[in-house]
Amino acid sequence: MARSLDDLIDALSSLPGIGKKSAARLAFYLLKRPVEDSEEIAARIVRARRNLKPCAICGNLAEDDRCEICGDESRDNSIICVVEEPSDVSAIESAGNFHGRYHVLGGALSPLDGIGPEELNIESLKARAREGIRELIIATNPSTEGEATAAYLSSVLKNGKLKVSRIARGLPAGGSLEFADKATLARAMDNRTPLE
Amino acid sequence: MARSLDDLIDALSSLPGIGKKSAARLAFYLLKRPVEDSEEIAARIVRARRNLKPCAICGNLAEDDRCEICGDESRDNSIICVVEEPSDVSAIESAGNFHGRYHVLGGALSPLDGIGPEELNIESLKARAREGIRELIIATNPSTEGEATAAYLSSVLKNGKLKVSRIARGLPAGGSLEFADKATLARAMDNRTPLE
Repeated sequence: MARSLDDLIDALSSLPGIGKKSAARLAFYLLKRPVEDSEEIAARIVRARRNLKPCAICGNLAEDDRCEICGDESRDNSIICVVEEPSDVSAIESAGNFHGRYHVLGGALSPLDGIGPEELNIESLKARAREGIRELIIATNPSTEGEATAAYLSSVLKNGKLKVSRIARGLPAGGSLEFADKATLARAMDNRTPLE
Repeated sequence: MARSLDDLIDALSSLPGIGKKSAARLAFYLLKRPVEDSEEIAARIVRARRNLKPCAICGNLAEDDRCEICGDESRDNSIICVVEEPSDVSAIESAGNFHGRYHVLGGALSPLDGIGPEELNIESLKARAREGIRELIIATNPSTEGEATAAYLSSVLKNGKLKVSRIARGLPAGGSLEFADKATLARAMDNRTPLE
């Protein structure tokens, strides 16, 4: 195959969830589009990568010093949702029922990978937690690392005035008991909520 | 969300098989990689789109005037495999048992979309067919358009000396009769081959 086609397929197959076959399909598609269209996609990759940097306040992706959420005056300053990655902010925003602020840790505690509290965006969270915050919702992933991070944050941040909560874990909406794993079912039983 | 992130997700979700969610996942991944990596992917899109043009002989993608296959002296000049798109050349090459030349039509006949014989790379195929070719294998897709194109090509190209064949249609390897559709099964019965 032509070298620049091979190079493109290699590059695309390095993306998550894109195997060799999908990469070839994408490459041939990009080659069929008008030159301007393909170049626009390339330009947007470069532009996004160059323009976006961590928000000085919360660590979310931002075009300016502060991200759009930190710059939004209408949001509730007294509640912070703590997540691992900027993609988690997008996910929770798309759910649409949280109107407070965020704090992006930049990952989760993982001693085996050399990620301790110093590697995460935790000092700035401590500073924010001292400034009139009412509640912290720890929305790290329900994985081993995410749960360990939640436990650690609770131990260092909880105090008399500050409520620290964990995002609920249970059966996913539209899921079925039959296909749920044991750990999820056990959680769902333990965390049952009263029917009013 | 930040504008350049939105723009990137929009661009990526325009790719085939990439929905909004996968596009967001790819975008966040590109933003986590080192700047050089993301820019290399962008550069390869631009480079491939600019460098690759149709081969002057067969219409396959080529970095130079002629593609690598047309430039390969070791291949059999007496047999041509006719396909719709350059991606079909890659697919047949990966099967590894064809060692002749190719001809890329650039699509299939589709009168409803205004694609007649003049819109396809057929004149140059006629010219090639006059130059000592022994066999043409029509490997257009087993779709309505592909079958119509195969029938048309056979009618205009077949002559006393030139054998025109069609790539076999039947059960896919690893498939099962239970899940095959009626048309495929009918073909598989009609085109049965003797067991030696």
